[in-house]
Formats: sequence, C-alpha cells, structure tokens
Amino acid sequence: MTNFFPLAQPISTDEMERYFDRLWPICRSISGNGLRSSFEILQEIIPLELIEYPTGKEVFDWTIPNEWNITDAYIITPEGEKICDFKSNNLHIVNYSIPFEREVEWEELATRFFTIENQPNAIPYITSYYKENWGFCIDYNTLKRLPKVGKYKVVIKSELKPGSVTVGHCVLPGKSSEEIVLSTYLCHPSMANNELSGPLCMAYLYKQLAAIPDRKYTYRFIMAPETIGVIAYLSDYGQHMKKMTKAGYIMTCCGDDAPFVFKQSKHEVSEVEKSTAHFFKHADIPFSIIPFSVGGSDERQYCSPGFNLPMGSITRSMYHRYKEYHTSLDNKDFISFQAMSNTVQAYLSCCLIMENNCIPNCLVPYGEPRMGKRNLLPSSIEPNDKRRQDIDRMFHLISWSDGQRDLIEIAEKRNESILYYLPILDKLIEEKLIAI
Amino acid sequence: MTNFFPLAQPISTDEMERYFDRLWPICRSISGNGLRSSFEILQEIIPLELIEYPTGKEVFDWTIPNEWNITDAYIITPEGEKICDFKSNNLHIVNYSIPFEREVEWEELATRFFTIENQPNAIPYITSYYKENWGFCIDYNTLKRLPKVGKYKVVIKSELKPGSVTVGHCVLPGKSSEEIVLSTYLCHPSMANNELSGPLCMAYLYKQLAAIPDRKYTYRFIMAPETIGVIAYLSDYGQHMKKMTKAGYIMTCCGDDAPFVFKQSKHEVSEVEKSTAHFFKHADIPFSIIPFSVGGSDERQYCSPGFNLPMGSITRSMYHRYKEYHTSLDNKDFISFQAMSNTVQAYLSCCLIMENNCIPNCLVPYGEPRMGKRNLLPSSIEPNDKRRQDIDRMFHLISWSDGQRDLIEIAEKRNESILYYLPILDKLIEEKLIAI
Amino acid sequence: MTNFFPLAQPISTDEMERYFDRLWPICRSISGNGLRSSFEILQEIIPLELIEYPTGKEVFDWTIPNEWNITDAYIITPEGEKICDFKSNNLHIVNYSIPFEREVEWEELATRFFTIENQPNAIPYITSYYKENWGFCIDYNTLKRLPKVGKYKVVIKSELKPGSVTVGHCVLPGKSSEEIVLSTYLCHPSMANNELSGPLCMAYLYKQLAAIPDRKYTYRFIMAPETIGVIAYLSDYGQHMKKMTKAGYIMTCCGDDAPFVFKQSKHEVSEVEKSTAHFFKHADIPFSIIPFSVGGSDERQYCSPGFNLPMGSITRSMYHRYKEYHTSLDNKDFISFQAMSNTVQAYLSCCLIMENNCIPNCLVPYGEPRMGKRNLLPSSIEPNDKRRQDIDRMFHLISWSDGQRDLIEIAEKRNESILYYLPILDKLIEEKLIAI
Repeated sequence: MTNFFPLAQPISTDEMERYFDRLWPICRSISGNGLRSSFEILQEIIPLELIEYPTGKEVFDWTIPNEWNITDAYIITPEGEKICDFKSNNLHIVNYSIPFEREVEWEELATRFFTIENQPNAIPYITSYYKENWGFCIDYNTLKRLPKVGKYKVVIKSELKPGSVTVGHCVLPGKSSEEIVLSTYLCHPSMANNELSGPLCMAYLYKQLAAIPDRKYTYRFIMAPETIGVIAYLSDYGQHMKKMTKAGYIMTCCGDDAPFVFKQSKHEVSEVEKSTAHFFKHADIPFSIIPFSVGGSDERQYCSPGFNLPMGSITRSMYHRYKEYHTSLDNKDFISFQAMSNTVQAYLSCCLIMENNCIPNCLVPYGEPRMGKRNLLPSSIEPNDKRRQDIDRMFHLISWSDGQRDLIEIAEKRNESILYYLPILDKLIEEKLIAI
Repeated sequence: MTNFFPLAQPISTDEMERYFDRLWPICRSISGNGLRSSFEILQEIIPLELIEYPTGKEVFDWTIPNEWNITDAYIITPEGEKICDFKSNNLHIVNYSIPFEREVEWEELATRFFTIENQPNAIPYITSYYKENWGFCIDYNTLKRLPKVGKYKVVIKSELKPGSVTVGHCVLPGKSSEEIVLSTYLCHPSMANNELSGPLCMAYLYKQLAAIPDRKYTYRFIMAPETIGVIAYLSDYGQHMKKMTKAGYIMTCCGDDAPFVFKQSKHEVSEVEKSTAHFFKHADIPFSIIPFSVGGSDERQYCSPGFNLPMGSITRSMYHRYKEYHTSLDNKDFISFQAMSNTVQAYLSCCLIMENNCIPNCLVPYGEPRMGKRNLLPSSIEPNDKRRQDIDRMFHLISWSDGQRDLIEIAEKRNESILYYLPILDKLIEEKLIAI
Repeated sequence: MTNFFPLAQPISTDEMERYFDRLWPICRSISGNGLRSSFEILQEIIPLELIEYPTGKEVFDWTIPNEWNITDAYIITPEGEKICDFKSNNLHIVNYSIPFEREVEWEELATRFFTIENQPNAIPYITSYYKENWGFCIDYNTLKRLPKVGKYKVVIKSELKPGSVTVGHCVLPGKSSEEIVLSTYLCHPSMANNELSGPLCMAYLYKQLAAIPDRKYTYRFIMAPETIGVIAYLSDYGQHMKKMTKAGYIMTCCGDDAPFVFKQSKHEVSEVEKSTAHFFKHADIPFSIIPFSVGGSDERQYCSPGFNLPMGSITRSMYHRYKEYHTSLDNKDFISFQAMSNTVQAYLSCCLIMENNCIPNCLVPYGEPRMGKRNLLPSSIEPNDKRRQDIDRMFHLISWSDGQRDLIEIAEKRNESILYYLPILDKLIEEKLIAI
C-alpha cells in the first residue's frame, strides 16, 4: 500500500476475527446487558472506562430512556412452527420491544411485521427507542408463506425499566493537550460493516497509537450508543472537546474492501481535511472525498452548531449506500479482516500525518547553506542516481522552510507525500539547519 | 416554471397588451409631451411621481437640453409621393430634428438619410440630442427606388426650446430602509423589446411587489429618459442611493421569449449576483450570466465610479445582440405578452429571494434537537416517502443554522432552491428551534 | 510579435554576434583572469562596476575560495597524440583543476576522465570548486579509442592561490527608489545558451532601459559568478534589496528560439508574476508558466527564506531540459542572435508593463462624463468603424478607474493587453478625466 505509514506493531487478523466472533451473537441496544458485555470484550483490547448515564437524566434536549434487556422472543404459527426466533437472529425482534406474551390473530400480528419485499432474504433492522411498542422483523420469503388466518403465539421476554445507558471512553495522553478524537458507536445487534467494524477498528487503532513512543497529540476514544450516548457524553465533555479538539474522525462502516470515502467536517479546510486528503492523494488507491452532510452518524452531534468540531469520517461501503445496510445481510460474509486491518492503517496514517506535520524554520536563511562542508551530499553522484531525488527534496525543504507553511504544503509543492521528507527533516534538524 | 416564486396576484396579458397598444404610437424622446403622455398612461398602473428638470440645469458633467416636441414630418418626392411620413412611423424622423420646411435638391437630401442596406425593410432609429441637426430614417428598399434628381419637399413641424426633461419615480416602503432599486428608461419612440417591454414590466412588477404584505426591503422605482434622465435623477438622489441601495436591476429588453441573460454589477459577488444566480440555477430554464460591461444602458450611470451601485440587469434578447435592435422591426411581432409576464415573475422571484434570505440561528445548538417530542416527524415513514426529503432538509437546515451563513448558502449545500426551505424554516421558527 | 512593446532603440544582431565571438573562447570560472577579461568586454555595453571579494572572506554560510587561473592543459598519449587540449576547447579541463605535470599509467588516468556515453560527441562540463582535485572531460568517441595501457603525460598549467572572486553590478536610477532587479551569472567556460546568452541579453536590456527617458523604477543589474558570487553580493546588498525590490528576473538560458518559459517567484501573485503573465497571455506566442522550484540558478540565493525576493526567470530552452545543457554542444549552433534580440524585447516588455501599470482614478466619477463636449468622440461613426473599439475601451477605462484596481486588471477585463489602453489613458489624463 503506497505511502501508508508502517504499522507500529503487526495486526493479527485471526485475533481480530476471534473478537468479531465473540461479539457477533450478542444482542446490543442503546442500553442493557448486551451492550455491557460487548464493552467487556472490547476492554481486552482498549482500556475503556465506562460511564453509566441513569434513566431520566436530562442531557441537552434529550432524556436518558429506560434500560432494555431481553432474553428471548419468538412466534409460534398456527401450524406450530417457531419463527422469528430471537435466538437464531437477534434482528428478528424490533429493538426496544416491550414484554409481550399472548396469542394474537393474524390480522393483528400482520401490522407488527417489518420486511423488505425487494430483498426477500433479508431481515430488516428496526428500533423503537422512544415510543413503547413491539414488533418483529422477518424476511419476505418467510412472511409470504405464512398462513394468513389463525392464532399466532407471540413471546417477547424483555424488560424495560429504569437503569442506565453505558458509554465507554479513554484518553491516550500526548505531549500536547490538544486532542485528536476518535468516536464510534456500539448499539446495533448482529451487523458487521455497520457496526462491528467500527468498534473493532477503533480498538486496534488504539493499540497502534499506544505503541508510538512520543505522541504529539492526546487521543480521545469514545465508544457510545449512537445519538443518545454521544449526546450524554457531550453533556459532560462537550465544552472541553470544543476547546481541545484539533481534529477527529467518526469511525463507522469500515469493514469491507470497498474504496475509501472521506466525509469532511463542516470546516472543509481544517487539519482533518488537509491531512486526510494528503494521505489519500498519495496512497495510490481509489478513494473519494465528499462534503459534510448531516445524515450519517454522530457527526449530527459533534458537528451540531454549538460544538461544530472538526471531525470527519473515513468509511468503506458507507451507510445508506449499500443494499445490505441495516439488514441481516450485513454479516461476516460482507466484511474482511484484512480490509479492516487496512482501514486501521489508513486511520493510523492520517493520525501520523498530523503527528508529523510541523512548520519548519530554516536556521541558515540567507543564501543556501553550504551542504558540502556538512557531509549532507554524496561525494559524487550520477544524474540517474536515486539519491538525487532526496538531494532535490533536501534543497526544496530548506528553501521552503520559511516559517510560513507546514510540511504538508511543502511536500505538496512537489506533489509528494510527507513520508519522503520525514527522514530528511530529521537529518536537517540534527545538522541545525532547520528547527521546528 | 420550476422554482419561480408564485405571483402575488395574476397578471392579465390582455390588459398588458392594451397598455402596449396605447403606448406604442406615441413619439417619445428624452423630453417633450410624448414622454409626458406616456408617463400618464403608465401612472394608471404604477403611481409614479414626476420630476421636471428644466432646460439649462447643470447635472454633474451634463446640462439639461432644450425640450423637443413634434407634430408632423414627411417628404414629398419630385413625383408627388409622400414618404418618411412621421404619422405612419415616428422612427422616420431623426429624434430631436430641428424644425425645417423647404424644397431641397436630391443631392442635399441624400446626406440627410439614414438607412440599413443589409436590412432593407428596416427603418433605423437615430437621434441627435446634443447637436442641432435634422434628418430622416428610411428603409433601404424605399430609398433605392427614389428618383436621384429633382426637388424634394421637406416638412418637419418640430419645436426645440427651453422646457424640461421629465423623470418618474416612486418608492414602495418596507420594514427596512435599505432599498432594492428598479430602473428602466422611457425615451424611445415606437420600439417594443427595447423599449416598451421595460416600462411595462416595471409597472407590473410594481403591482406584484405592492401586493406583498410584509416587505422587508424598500423598493425604489425609477423610470427616466436614458442617460440624461438618470444623470439628473442621480444628481438629486445619488448620495441617498449610494448609502441605501442593497441591490438593484436595470430593466430593459425584457419583452421576447429568448433565454434570460443576467448581467452582473461591478461588485460581482454582492447580494444581487448571489440571489439572481441562485434563482436561475434552480429555475430549469436556459440562461446565461455575463460580467459587467460598460456598454448597455443606465449601468453607465448607476455603476459609474462615484456611485458603483450593486445593480445588475436581467434581459431577454439583449441590446446589440439581436438584429432588430434599434429598428422598426423591433415591434409587436418581436415580443410576447406571456414572455413579459414571465420576465416579471423572474424579477419578482429574485426580489423574493432577497426578501426571504436570512441568517438562521439554531436555538438548540448542542447536539441535535429531539424532533419526536415536537411532532416534527411523521410517526412512521417508508424509505421512499416523499416527505423524507423534507425531513432531510429540516435536519440539514438545523445543523447549518450556525449564524455563519445565509439561507441561500445553506440551500446551495444541497444544490436546491431556498423555496423548499421556506416552509420548513417557518415551522422551525414556530417551534423555537431557529431564530432569524 | 503581437503586443511586444517596441524597442527603445534598434538592436544590432551583428554587433551582438561580434561580442559573442570575443567572449566565447575565454575560459571563465568563478574567479580568475578569464572572468575579469569577460567583464571587461561586457563593460563596453553595460557600465558594470566590479567588486573583488578576497579569498577567505566569510559570506553568510560560505567562504570565498582561492582564485584559479590556467594557461594550458593537455594529455599526450603513449602513441604521442595530444588529446584533451585546453586550447582547442576549455571544457576539456575540470574547472578549478589543481596544477599537475607528470606521467601516469592508464589505470590512474582512467579514473580522472569524465564523459557522456550516450552523447558520444559531447565534452561534458565539470567543476570542482571546493575540493582540490584534477580531471579531464572528454567525448566518448575519443575516450573509447585510447590505448588502455601505457604511460600518458598529463600537463595542467594552473594556479590555485589566494586572490578574489569578481562581481559586477550597476544601478540605473528611476523616479522611485523601488527597484527592479536583473541578475545573470558569468562563470561558465565556452557554452552559449547557458551561459553567454544571459550576460549578453542583460547588457542589451540595459541599453534599452537606459534609453527610456522617464523611468519609474530604479533598475539594479547584477552579473556574478553563480552561487558564490551572488551570496557574496547579497552579504553586502541583501538587506537593501530585501527592502527595495519590487520585482526581478534571473536572466539565464535565453539564447535559442524555443518557446518562452516563465518560472515564478515563491510569491506566486506578486507584480512580477502579474506583469509577466499579462505580457505572455497577449503576446500570441507559445509559452508556459511554471511555479517556483529551488533547482535552477541564483533563485536559490535570492529566494532563500531570509530574503525571499519576488524574482522570477524568463528562459527559452531551460537548464536541465535540453540535452546539450552543460556540454560542448551548447555552442553557437544552438543559439540565434535574433532569438536573443526577441528575448531582450520580451524582458523589456515585462519591465515596461510594470513601468506603465498604475491605478487610475476617474476625476468625473458621478455619472459618465459627457464626451461630446470634449471632442473625444468622432462626430459620426459607422458600426464597423475600427475606431469603435477605442471608444469602447475609453468608456471601459473611465468606468473602471475607481482607484480600486490597476491598469492590468482593467485591460484584462476585456481580455486585452494594456498596450491598447496607454494612448487612451494619456488622452484622458490630458483631458483631466483621469488622474494616476
């Protein structure tokens, strides 16, 4: 992968797969024990501290809802067949369904079904967090063959009562208190690209960043139920983040090997756009950059007018843009652990571009420095010697180190990645020709 | 017509045609009774107040000339034929011709003729306001068959003596004293696209704007003889206009159904360019935008360096760009009253874009507002429901209402007309989610 | 040549050729008597004052080296053939070779040869200013036929000892103390495009500029050995130049008739880029504009971060971009004196654009001035009269003379050269309609 920064340590895709397999069957929601046990597994990789926001707490315009837990749900047809079995696929139950156990007529039950007629094999993903309700999600093939008369037995063994919404976060300190924020959501039941790819990529990105010895920036990792979790978190940390956030990313839909998509923040020209565009431009892989739009994920919160944080998002197959989105077809077959490893490396590269970007100042600014007396030039060099490029880069870097522009801008003047300039910069700093 | 704002009241093209038919035969000039009687007819539609600038008055670099009146003019050929009959077409006489009544030889008369050889049916339009002179305009077909010897009897029953130049204006007040200026000229004899379309469109635009209950802006209407009339008016009102003009248009050449042309002011990026471009971009009709150029009409005065008002011009077939321009062929056949009604609606739309543009501020800026508790969302909605677009627009509008950009910029981020956002904005203001 | 400014006096290409022929055979270097005698010849055209920077003097990061002089150098083969004869081509000796006179074995001598295998007829140009060394440059055809055994007699009659580096400069005063800097280098032995075209074009440009009666700007001419000479000069004049330089050019590689290349300064949008781009855009010849890059010539010094002067470079076949560069094939056949005359005229035109550019202010700013009473309009004019263009330009110029933009910007609004506006501007200044 051209101009990706090297990993700080190898990523084991087998290990990643084992974590995926443990997380996959758990029925997560915006609250409850499925969410908590998912956090517990991820804490083996990333040291998330958990915050419990109690039911009823006011968080900005919102109120923390009751906690939801579920142990089982299914339907017995008039013919005795068990369908919509929660234990075989937790998407079958409308998330946050209230407890229910009764025989109902087909006519009543029919209004409780959600299906996708033009994807007849897919079970859709439906929630009803803020309106007490119950329902089942079913693939159209099954639905159409059900007897349209008779009594169905409905069983939903759930519980909806005061408890809390759980949010995870941790901070990896750097030399500066300026922060790079990484946020992902944990609240969807069994779906792979959206959502498990997000928490897993974040956890593995944590490991990479933690392995870097001298971080310039502080990194804040947030893993929270979408919307309500992030709103709750912002009610505590929003003002701090507004002050300290240099850049950030919402990590979501990063599990397959579709071309990367970078969605900008509202700032359009901040450090996150500059570094990410610089990375992709020189990475020699297909990619696209799209402007901010309010649809999507937690940029709705982070980029709301009161905060307007400079946070973008790097995805692969993006929400709303692939037909398996929010269905049972967004499963392990849809993703690849090698792709997720590459996504981690792409995020890492963008972070390292920000880590390494700087405004260099030439310390011998009047006329060019005499390189010969500093052993910075080979004693002789043929025109086609590959070292010539590095010599050209060295003179280019010295000449443009005027304290007016950063390393990205300087490298872009030769249409190159800053990766080629970092070792040269180190040498020039050592020789006291440049200070940063 | 896509994304035109609706008319404030219907326009009767029959009525417009009757006004046209009454105005058409009158011999107008930059002064005189033809001009005054034309104003009188137009005052039935728009309450213009008339100002008389007396002959000899200094107005900036200019002096008000003598007033010109004419009752008849013609030529009798050696064969007794009456040609160049003013009463059949008032273009036959060079406008501002001095009185003359004498027999002249062909050789002398020949130097007094103006014709257009490559448009042999057209009578050209010629003036001599500032140099005392006389002459006749004639179609080339007639000219070439005239006997080239013998005595011709020339009769010009005109009068050139101290009087005044008449200018009309009126002001339609709005909540703000900032003004949108609409200017057109009245001084050409019988020509349709250039000029009667201008005064008629302005009069009907006046009626539309007067019918709007809560105007934000004050509207200033100026109808004046081109150049001298506007210079005179500016000598009175120029300093006021320099201070108060938010935007403006010179209304001219707006009578046929050729594609719209918008000529920018010198400002290039002021409100008039922004609003007009926004209108045309979403109007789904062919159009072009051209930069300011000094040729044309009264932008020479309004945009002179001392004033430099932000005034553009929306035309159909533009001056100098159609072959019938300044000839007898620019007549009723060339124009259409439906096209003029559409021109009025285009001008109205641009004005209403300015009226409705505003900088919205989100009042629930931290995280997204909870829409469910405000009944701003349908209880359930299918993915293809057309209301989904309005929901997306609502979230888009809330998210971008950061006090940093106006409604046009916000709508343009989704490449849409502000028309789609106005009802949503009203609802959000009512719900106290947005203030403007 | 379209839109070139006329020469202030004719250029004799025959005379230029005679100067070239006198300068050609001299063995120049960054110091020594060859350099001094070259200056002496050029002083017949341009009154350069010479500065001697003594060996050992510290100039910024550099030290003035020993002075080098040479009278002869050659090799006698084992077969008695005289090769690499300095007197037949002074490129044969590595510039700054130390004195040497001894018989050497082929094996030793072989390591002292420089050649270009894929240009077998060319003698390369090699220097060793800062490392004491000796060597010979030889065409590959000769090299390959030499006996590869036996004793060769090597003779280098050179001298390397304390002396000085010579720099020439002169200043042509103008009304303003703001300076336009013209710099070229003199230090290469017999090569034509790079380098004799530079000093010759500068000398002839001097004559053109000296012939202009009322120069607005002061012109500083610098002719110096590349790198060390300019660094020495900047150690004396750099702070003055940093303060006073409005624009400047490094004159190099301007001898053949390849399309012009304009290399920008680091400023990218300063007067030198604006004027030069304006010139080429309207000159109706092929050209290209390239951004600043540190490779090349003395822009490495003038544009070093401490000075960062707004100096660009107009070249024909540019350094590193033609295969004859830095070889014996860059000779009189490669260049043309007519091309050099055109280069001088191109540089002159750019200077005159800067001389004539100004910010005009309309003195009759309210409404358009009445031109009729000033005899600025022809009494009558047909639509196709060529004078109409000048009338349009006159109104255009008046309207845009708002004190906000310069003549180049005003002319560019009609996509024309300022050349068309200069006589009109003069007339309007005379009529007191415009002041500058």
